[in-house]
Amino acid sequence: MDTTRFQDCIDACNACAAACDHCAASCLQEDDVKMMAGCIALDMDCSQLCRLAAGYMARGSRFARELCRLCAEVCAACAEECGKHDADHCQQCAAACRRCAEACRAMAA
Amino acid sequence: MDTTRFQDCIDACNACAAACDHCAASCLQEDDVKMMAGCIALDMDCSQLCRLAAGYMARGSRFARELCRLCAEVCAACAEECGKHDADHCQQCAAACRRCAEACRAMAA
Amino acid sequence: MDTTRFQDCIDACNACAAACDHCAASCLQEDDVKMMAGCIALDMDCSQLCRLAAGYMARGSRFARELCRLCAEVCAACAEECGKHDADHCQQCAAACRRCAEACRAMAA
Amino acid sequence: MDTTRFQDCIDACNACAAACDHCAASCLQEDDVKMMAGCIALDMDCSQLCRLAAGYMARGSRFARELCRLCAEVCAACAEECGKHDADHCQQCAAACRRCAEACRAMAA
Repeated sequence: MDTTRFQDCIDACNACAAACDHCAASCLQEDDVKMMAGCIALDMDCSQLCRLAAGYMARGSRFARELCRLCAEVCAACAEECGKHDADHCQQCAAACRRCAEACRAMAA
Repeated sequence: MDTTRFQDCIDACNACAAACDHCAASCLQEDDVKMMAGCIALDMDCSQLCRLAAGYMARGSRFARELCRLCAEVCAACAEECGKHDADHCQQCAAACRRCAEACRAMAA
Repeated sequence: MDTTRFQDCIDACNACAAACDHCAASCLQEDDVKMMAGCIALDMDCSQLCRLAAGYMARGSRFARELCRLCAEVCAACAEECGKHDADHCQQCAAACRRCAEACRAMAA
Repeated sequence: MDTTRFQDCIDACNACAAACDHCAASCLQEDDVKMMAGCIALDMDCSQLCRLAAGYMARGSRFARELCRLCAEVCAACAEECGKHDADHCQQCAAACRRCAEACRAMAA
C-alpha cells in the first residue's frame, strides 16, 4: 500500500485540526466570547473531521476520497467564519482551513 | 436547540460503533485472520465515523446531515462485508450496521 | 472475548459524550457565553475522551481500565463545572458526567 | 494561551498516529495476518489516543499532561509489539511510537 501521495493532505489535515483546536480554546478566552460562538462550533466540527480524514488516508481506506470531499466543505465553511474575525488565532485558523480545503479537494478529485 | 429527534440516530451510531469495534477485536482472535482482513478494515472506518456522526448530531451541527449521508454509505459497505462471515460477531455487526445505515439515511433525507 | 461486562460503562460513556456535546452547543447559544467558557472547554475534553473509552472497552483493549481511570477524572471535573450553572443542559450534563465517572471508576477498579 | 511548547509533542503524536494507521492497514495485507494480530490491536489503540492527545494539547487542556502520560504508555507498548516484526511498516511504526512516547513523557513531566 502506498500512502505517500496522501502525505501532503495528511499534513494539511493535522495542521488544520491543531489550528482549529487552538482557535476554539483561544476564542473561549476572548472578552466577547458570544461573537465567537459560530467560530467555536465550526472549529469543533472541523478539527474532529480533519483528524478522522488523516486516519482514513493513513490506512488507505477506500472511503478516504469521500471523506476528504466532505472535509473540504467543512474546512471551507470554517475558513469563511474564522476569516471574519481579526484575532490572530482566527486568521491563522482560516489560513490553515483554506490550505486543508484545497488539499482535500485535490485528494477527492 | 432540539436534538431529541437525533436521538434514535445517535443510538444507532453508538450501537454500530461498539459492534464494529467488538467485531474487529474478535476477528483478530479468529483462527483465519486473513479471511477477516476486509472486515477489520471496514470495522475501523465504520466505528470511527459513527462516533463522529454521533457528536455532530449531539451538537446539532449544520453538517450533521452530510456526515450521516456518508456514514450510511460506510455502514452499508461494512454490513455487506461482515454479512459474508458466519461468526456471531460478524453477523451482529452486520445487523447493527444495517440499522445504522437506515437511521443515517433517514437523518440525511 | 467478552465485552458484555463493559456494556454498562460503554452506555454511560455514550450518554455522557452526547450530553457534553449537547451542552457545549447549547452553551454557545446562551446570552452570556463568556460565563460558560469553562463549561464548553471541559465538555469538549469529556465528550472526546468518553467516545475513545467506549471504543477501547468495545475492543476489549488491555488499556481500557487505564483509559477509564482518566475518563473518570475528566468526567468528575466536567460535572463539577457544569453543576455550577442552572441551565437545563448544564444540569443534565453534570448528571450524565457523574454517572459516567462512577461507571468508569468501577471499570478501572 | 501559548501552545507553541506543545508543538513538538503534537507533531510526534500526529506522526505516530499516521504510522500506526499505516501499519495496521499494511499488517492486514500481509500473508500471515494472524502473526500481526497483536500489532494491529495496539495500532488502533495508539493512533486514536495520539490524535486525542494532539487535540488536548492544541486546546491547552488542563488534562493534556495526564493524557500524554497515558499516551506514552500505549506508545511504548505499541513500539514493543511492532518492534518484534521485520516488516518495514512495523519497524517504522515502532520508531514513531518510541519518539512519541519520549515526547509525551517529556510533556507529562
